[in-house]
Amino acid sequence: MVDSTKNVSDLTALEVREHLLSGQETVQEFIAKLGRFVDGADQAIHAFAHRDDRVVDLQADNLQRDRAAGHLPGALFGVPVGVKDIIDTMDFPTEYGSVIHAGRYSVGDATVVSRLRAAGAVIFGKTVTTEFATTQPGPTCNPHNLAHTPGGSSSGSAAAVAAGMVPVALGTQTNGSVIRPASFCGVYAFKPSRGLLPRTGVLDQSPSLDEIGVFARNLEDIAKVTEIMSGDDGHDSASARQSPRRLYDVAVSEPPLNPKFCFVKTPWWDDVEPEAREAYEAFVAHMGDHVEMVQLPDIVKKVAPWLVTINEIELGVCLQKEWLNHRDLLSEPLRARVEKSMTLSGTDYLIAKDRMFHVMNAFDEFFATYDAILCPAALGTAPQGLASTGNPIMQTVWSFAGLPSVNLPLLTLSNGLPLGVQSVGAYQNDARLLRSSRWLVSEFIQRNMA
Amino acid sequence: MVDSTKNVSDLTALEVREHLLSGQETVQEFIAKLGRFVDGADQAIHAFAHRDDRVVDLQADNLQRDRAAGHLPGALFGVPVGVKDIIDTMDFPTEYGSVIHAGRYSVGDATVVSRLRAAGAVIFGKTVTTEFATTQPGPTCNPHNLAHTPGGSSSGSAAAVAAGMVPVALGTQTNGSVIRPASFCGVYAFKPSRGLLPRTGVLDQSPSLDEIGVFARNLEDIAKVTEIMSGDDGHDSASARQSPRRLYDVAVSEPPLNPKFCFVKTPWWDDVEPEAREAYEAFVAHMGDHVEMVQLPDIVKKVAPWLVTINEIELGVCLQKEWLNHRDLLSEPLRARVEKSMTLSGTDYLIAKDRMFHVMNAFDEFFATYDAILCPAALGTAPQGLASTGNPIMQTVWSFAGLPSVNLPLLTLSNGLPLGVQSVGAYQNDARLLRSSRWLVSEFIQRNMA
Repeated sequence: MVDSTKNVSDLTALEVREHLLSGQETVQEFIAKLGRFVDGADQAIHAFAHRDDRVVDLQADNLQRDRAAGHLPGALFGVPVGVKDIIDTMDFPTEYGSVIHAGRYSVGDATVVSRLRAAGAVIFGKTVTTEFATTQPGPTCNPHNLAHTPGGSSSGSAAAVAAGMVPVALGTQTNGSVIRPASFCGVYAFKPSRGLLPRTGVLDQSPSLDEIGVFARNLEDIAKVTEIMSGDDGHDSASARQSPRRLYDVAVSEPPLNPKFCFVKTPWWDDVEPEAREAYEAFVAHMGDHVEMVQLPDIVKKVAPWLVTINEIELGVCLQKEWLNHRDLLSEPLRARVEKSMTLSGTDYLIAKDRMFHVMNAFDEFFATYDAILCPAALGTAPQGLASTGNPIMQTVWSFAGLPSVNLPLLTLSNGLPLGVQSVGAYQNDARLLRSSRWLVSEFIQRNMA
Repeated sequence: MVDSTKNVSDLTALEVREHLLSGQETVQEFIAKLGRFVDGADQAIHAFAHRDDRVVDLQADNLQRDRAAGHLPGALFGVPVGVKDIIDTMDFPTEYGSVIHAGRYSVGDATVVSRLRAAGAVIFGKTVTTEFATTQPGPTCNPHNLAHTPGGSSSGSAAAVAAGMVPVALGTQTNGSVIRPASFCGVYAFKPSRGLLPRTGVLDQSPSLDEIGVFARNLEDIAKVTEIMSGDDGHDSASARQSPRRLYDVAVSEPPLNPKFCFVKTPWWDDVEPEAREAYEAFVAHMGDHVEMVQLPDIVKKVAPWLVTINEIELGVCLQKEWLNHRDLLSEPLRARVEKSMTLSGTDYLIAKDRMFHVMNAFDEFFATYDAILCPAALGTAPQGLASTGNPIMQTVWSFAGLPSVNLPLLTLSNGLPLGVQSVGAYQNDARLLRSSRWLVSEFIQRNMA
């Protein structure tokens, strides 16, 4: 039984399901209560791009009717989910954070959305994204301090979970757009291995790099939700041969041995804010034998320009229609990026693509020794102001290599803002990453309390 | 029982199997007899880059021993196969038609080769390719007239089958390198739907376009051999989701209705040699109601530069190592191509890639009306001289779109050289193409005799 003193904004996804199945509240009642909470909270935070009570009520009615008819409840029965506004939903518009697509309705759900619905989730609304999931911010503020950015491009999803508006939200990461906003907003987030989640029905921004990610209140929810969305859908060729995964059972199990971590300072360590560097060093010291401090070779610096080459050329191509027909409705910085992208070399592009696989394999040896690689989730806490969404460099290598990574919201700096520890796993071993990371969180909390 | 008056050089693959299973000859005896024939014939034709009696004897011994031990014979028991010298074989070198790779042995067989071996085929030798399967010719001559090119880049495979040296040979086509040499040499050949045959262990020349093809004495052999090699191997991502196909049973069955064909003149019709144009027109007239003459819209002309963009950039990238380390050992034209490729735009590349799928779909309506599209297999018969391998333009659209196509060696011009009819099928409907094409051949022969 879920603690009945908990607010709607405190429940995890699996607690919401348990709560609703206990019959204390109907799905409709719970969703209405949550709606009232969000009505208030989102006036300051602006996490949602679209909400519509009628659409949510209809979903709740269907779930409750289905349950009354005696059907087994899904694994996410009644769980409200926020969906980044570049992921198609048949009952809400999907506007890509651009006036060019104002009022655009998709013909159907993205694969991941339809899988969540089939598991009983309630699509609660569309969350704010930057323009075409690039760098031009939307109106969202950081719930910890409204004068600071929530990060981007999955700004609304990170903020919505951080503010208790939904227990789960979907985002996407091309360079750093899931793990960075999660660090800034102080929530758990997961970017799975390349291809695990099929992207059919999701805006193409840079198809070689784009991945779907999940924000939630804990790693158990993340494991369950990712598991439900995982596996080839027969459309996104990047998901070919990806079978659905049993992530939850592994993630909540005890590791056979205490996991071993390394903390890598990365070649960008000097760019990390001094107080954040101290906090990470204290964290490593605090974890004792479980975490070894290691330095990544400078050669990984090369990865950043390779990622940029791929990202820029693919972005330019993905936005060709908008550039040809509505150039004046693109933000000036984005217009300049698209124009510049057309001058880049095809050879450089394919060579960078080829390096993706080399870099992916280059980390294999780390995972022979360590269960996960830890590193900063960002260069510091969320920068002040809403004009920029911050620097993605701490995700660049892992995005390029397609490795799974999570944000663990373990630290807080003196400005009261959260700072995440990023935990990176072996390619295709998402379950092990989640299990090791969950162990780390629990060990950290125990040590903190001791 | 196979006609015992037939020479080793006249037998089809399936006849070889039948002959050997009847016990009239052992595999060793048959292979030795064929070897003596090839020793003589290849002195003039130069179809083979590598042959080695010891390697072939060993394979024959193993097959005969396996059979003596009571194991069921494979579908290609004892069938000699020539393999283009860009396809890895563990017991012969694979030199890519380049001095840079002289004496190069691969660590194992290409997937298609290992599947042929598992079916009992004898890998009889490596056939001559142009330099890296591009345009610089090897020493092979056209068996119909040694002063004429056999076409390329699968020169040796086409010539070996045409000269009776092997009943089956493997080639590859990036633009026109299977169907064109087959037309010039007067043999049947098949380039399957994109991705049907996994390319693991085959030289990458232009991964978006490269496909494996088959040369043989008839379409039955082609159906059987392709069937054995078909389906995802878990390595070549282009073959993902491609299941193995039952091509033979369909190809040899009667069509439910008389198939309907269109003959497309293509936008390059004016470039076809006058006598070849007449021959094609006479062919269409001869086939009466079964073939309708149609003109392709000029817009397909755009496909040629798109294919070139993809091919050039990918070629340049695939040859980076050779260009960096052994530039002086590349032919001058190839060196120039690689250098020029590095100036091409990444945006143009990705836009051309995107068009591949549009063009593939654009032909769907044809196959609602027609069972196959017929068109010239080449601009004329094999050009004189060995300095060039001829023009691939008649394959360009189908290579770009990834559609399956066959060469039907039905015509001969007044110079005594063969001219093929190219038959193109619906994407992923390779079996229907082979059945319709086989019906066409049989109908053509009956009408010719009447």
